[in-house]
Amino acid sequence: MIAANLSVSVDGYFAGPGAGPQQTLGQGGEVLHGWFAHDVADRDQLSAEDVLRPELERAGALVMGRDSYETAEAAWGPHPPFENPIFVLTHRPREDDVREGSTFTFVTDGFDAAIERARAAAGEKDVMLHGGTSIQQGLRAGILDELQLHVVPVLLTQGRWLWEDIGDLPIELEPVRTLEGVGVTHLKYRVRR
Amino acid sequence: MIAANLSVSVDGYFAGPGAGPQQTLGQGGEVLHGWFAHDVADRDQLSAEDVLRPELERAGALVMGRDSYETAEAAWGPHPPFENPIFVLTHRPREDDVREGSTFTFVTDGFDAAIERARAAAGEKDVMLHGGTSIQQGLRAGILDELQLHVVPVLLTQGRWLWEDIGDLPIELEPVRTLEGVGVTHLKYRVRR
Repeated sequence: MIAANLSVSVDGYFAGPGAGPQQTLGQGGEVLHGWFAHDVADRDQLSAEDVLRPELERAGALVMGRDSYETAEAAWGPHPPFENPIFVLTHRPREDDVREGSTFTFVTDGFDAAIERARAAAGEKDVMLHGGTSIQQGLRAGILDELQLHVVPVLLTQGRWLWEDIGDLPIELEPVRTLEGVGVTHLKYRVRR
Repeated sequence: MIAANLSVSVDGYFAGPGAGPQQTLGQGGEVLHGWFAHDVADRDQLSAEDVLRPELERAGALVMGRDSYETAEAAWGPHPPFENPIFVLTHRPREDDVREGSTFTFVTDGFDAAIERARAAAGEKDVMLHGGTSIQQGLRAGILDELQLHVVPVLLTQGRWLWEDIGDLPIELEPVRTLEGVGVTHLKYRVRR
């Protein structure tokens, strides 16, 4: 299965304006990741860990865009949070970037090739699309099976919009489940084909 | 309190392309109102009635744009579903349109004036903004207190987008509650000021 997770504002932005290596979530966009660190005082409340651990565990390989790699490189340091092979789509050939637990491999022959390499690397596990750009590509290519949106209660009004450039035909979804976290609502959908 | 309800796609469209009196929800947009009529086989499941009745009951007056009036006029016939005074924002003066149970009054001196007249008419009850255009105006003017989105599992990819023209500063929301319906997820937010 090919799946993805992304934190978005209610109006569908996954980063504020000016996102880049210096400011990974753009201006005002850090609010989108605030829920990772929210205190969960009540044991009945859902923690970020409860939601994200199964997503990390299912992953056998990751595919991300060059933009996500640049922000990830700045944010993750020597030990990325994903202990999986990571395939980075790029136009410029580049040597593997080997980190503790995972290696970034640069793929220059397109999205489909990156997906194929990730599928092979993932084996029985799932291929995860990481970041807004690769999710857009996955939707456009019709290969995304499941999408979980972590909807943060804010209208950013500008920035990088997730639903840009995903084609112009309706895409039917099927609700898998909704979970209410602290300062976030987790909507998981199956993409119908 | 000033509140609103709207059915939207996951990508935030409240109508497909070409919406107008002839095709009130635009091309492909009828899917957004499908949940009104979904059968609820299991008594534990939430029906449309469960969600919409309290919203109808809290309403003391409605404000809508001219576009919503035109689609409402076509859709509702002699007996509109809202038994409340309805204030329609328009540029052209027009005589009241009296229906069974409610009267449409046309307001030509702007959004604020329409809100003031609706507040006076609503008394202790709430003023409801009806339709995407009036919600956009309410957000832009900073007077909307509560917004419930009925999120329908589809990516429409085009049409009338709710988050257009609501200003360019982030608007903080506070989750009130999330309810899972049949073919729809109801996200209710308080707008923070």
